[in-house]
Amino acid sequence: MPVTDRPLALGIDLGGTKILAVMATQKGHIVSQEYMATGAKDGPEAVIKRMLRTVERVVKHGGAKLSDLNGVALAIAGVIDTRRGVITTSPNLLGWKDVPLRNEISQQLGITTYLLNDANAAALGENRFGAGRGTKHMIYITVSTGIGGGIIINGELYSGANGCAGEFGHMTIDPDGPECSCGRKGCWEALASGTSIAREARLQLKAGEKSLVNRKGVLRTITAETVGEAAVRGDRLAMDVITSAGRHLGIGLANIINIFNPEMIVIGGGVSNLGEMLLNPAREMVRQRAFDLPLSTVRIVRSQIGAAAGALGAAALVFDQVSKERRP
Amino acid sequence: MPVTDRPLALGIDLGGTKILAVMATQKGHIVSQEYMATGAKDGPEAVIKRMLRTVERVVKHGGAKLSDLNGVALAIAGVIDTRRGVITTSPNLLGWKDVPLRNEISQQLGITTYLLNDANAAALGENRFGAGRGTKHMIYITVSTGIGGGIIINGELYSGANGCAGEFGHMTIDPDGPECSCGRKGCWEALASGTSIAREARLQLKAGEKSLVNRKGVLRTITAETVGEAAVRGDRLAMDVITSAGRHLGIGLANIINIFNPEMIVIGGGVSNLGEMLLNPAREMVRQRAFDLPLSTVRIVRSQIGAAAGALGAAALVFDQVSKERRP
Repeated sequence: MPVTDRPLALGIDLGGTKILAVMATQKGHIVSQEYMATGAKDGPEAVIKRMLRTVERVVKHGGAKLSDLNGVALAIAGVIDTRRGVITTSPNLLGWKDVPLRNEISQQLGITTYLLNDANAAALGENRFGAGRGTKHMIYITVSTGIGGGIIINGELYSGANGCAGEFGHMTIDPDGPECSCGRKGCWEALASGTSIAREARLQLKAGEKSLVNRKGVLRTITAETVGEAAVRGDRLAMDVITSAGRHLGIGLANIINIFNPEMIVIGGGVSNLGEMLLNPAREMVRQRAFDLPLSTVRIVRSQIGAAAGALGAAALVFDQVSKERRP
Repeated sequence: MPVTDRPLALGIDLGGTKILAVMATQKGHIVSQEYMATGAKDGPEAVIKRMLRTVERVVKHGGAKLSDLNGVALAIAGVIDTRRGVITTSPNLLGWKDVPLRNEISQQLGITTYLLNDANAAALGENRFGAGRGTKHMIYITVSTGIGGGIIINGELYSGANGCAGEFGHMTIDPDGPECSCGRKGCWEALASGTSIAREARLQLKAGEKSLVNRKGVLRTITAETVGEAAVRGDRLAMDVITSAGRHLGIGLANIINIFNPEMIVIGGGVSNLGEMLLNPAREMVRQRAFDLPLSTVRIVRSQIGAAAGALGAAALVFDQVSKERRP
């Protein structure tokens, strides 16, 4: 049947470097998608214009009209007040403080608009269309420069009183640990993210350790990826740094298992591409620190959808909201 | 109207020292209640007999018959596999390993029987009839010899894949912290429970510190309560120990706020009777470690129901299950 005979929704992942817009069906079929550079440094007005242009294109290329859509949802990193539709702070969009983006977009497009946190959106995407298909109680964790997450309860996104639930990255797991980007000490993401891997490697090199990580001799070019490459070549320092991050990753995962007793934890984000050298020590720590009963149930798996998880999850949220509003 | 014209349920709190049974209405009105000593050391068979006798009495004294009841729910400390109706382990009932109590009781009484964790039950009790009335997203924490908890999402008890969600007490908040009763290091309850308060006071006294806590000169008689009494008299060591426990309590509460973005956290349990000398440092730490948006919403309050919260919450669970099973 023609595209416009099926219910359609738009999901937009507004990232620090690019905007991804997808037009999708309720079953997660992507009818059309468009990328555009965010150009975050140009400020909110310019970014909003680009987003509107991306929407125009993705709808047109998909052979639809705005009026065919059930709505649009925007997934954005940071603390999003989904109830009021406001970006309170975002690490990718510096200077966007308390921006009422939902009203702005819904007025411009004339369709129902939702905001949500990008990791919350990816959680919903993985639950409906990815690694978590068929699970009722699932936690999604993205390990990247930071750590984000999303909570699926009874097959629906749980977003809390204001819509900002799932901030696992700032769970304290060591009160005297290293300083986090948020200014606090010993947050999970200060001990198990890509940023923490690069920082630890740099610290040890500064202290005079020898390693392949530092081939170029420039400490600031070190990233989790370069540490990972050195580890693959058998570099001891790199392997130790990644093992330590993995163990700290496992501490946080064990906390999640004891608290949520989930069926599944899905792990995504660029740093999870380090694969088993990160996940093995994480699993070892999970076995040490989670209780037997929830441990016997939970499956810890890699994400399946990849880059489009946030945008697809955002589209899924639109359908969820529509069906909620139709319920008696 | 006569008692038996109203829907009734039984809630039983099976504790380490006493059994409390209540017969209650859906609105939380207690029609009758009975206490009996648990006598846990006599083993499962004897305890089950006492529980059945308590049930018989509470039903009779309430002017009802077993067949008038919608069901019975048993609240028990420990890791309860609510899906299978099995006590996997319980700190109060040593030697009760993998006891299929649900089937045992339902066969004996001939009515529908549920098991749940006691802190989960208290969470539901406080949400329906106590401090958390009217909240949709609420976390209950009991601070006692250990730390337990329960999660209310969308006004219902969330108990996870196996029914053992809410084990907040064994969230790691300091991987190199003191040893916990569970054998792991740095669990929340190893740093912020009554046991940890007594342990810290003892350690400092052994190290030669002077304090009112030790008036009797017998270290093993020290409890969180005696430390609290000394603190009220202005004893420096006692005040420091409680402040430190309060700060660690706050670290865990901040984690909960960042993860759940709840409307309310209700704090119960004997140690919470220390009041503001524990809760003030906890709130201070929460302000330091929780994000502004969820912090602006959450209320941290003391429990209201007290000793009957678990039994009343168990009765509420019976009504919830009945109405779920009736849903199409």
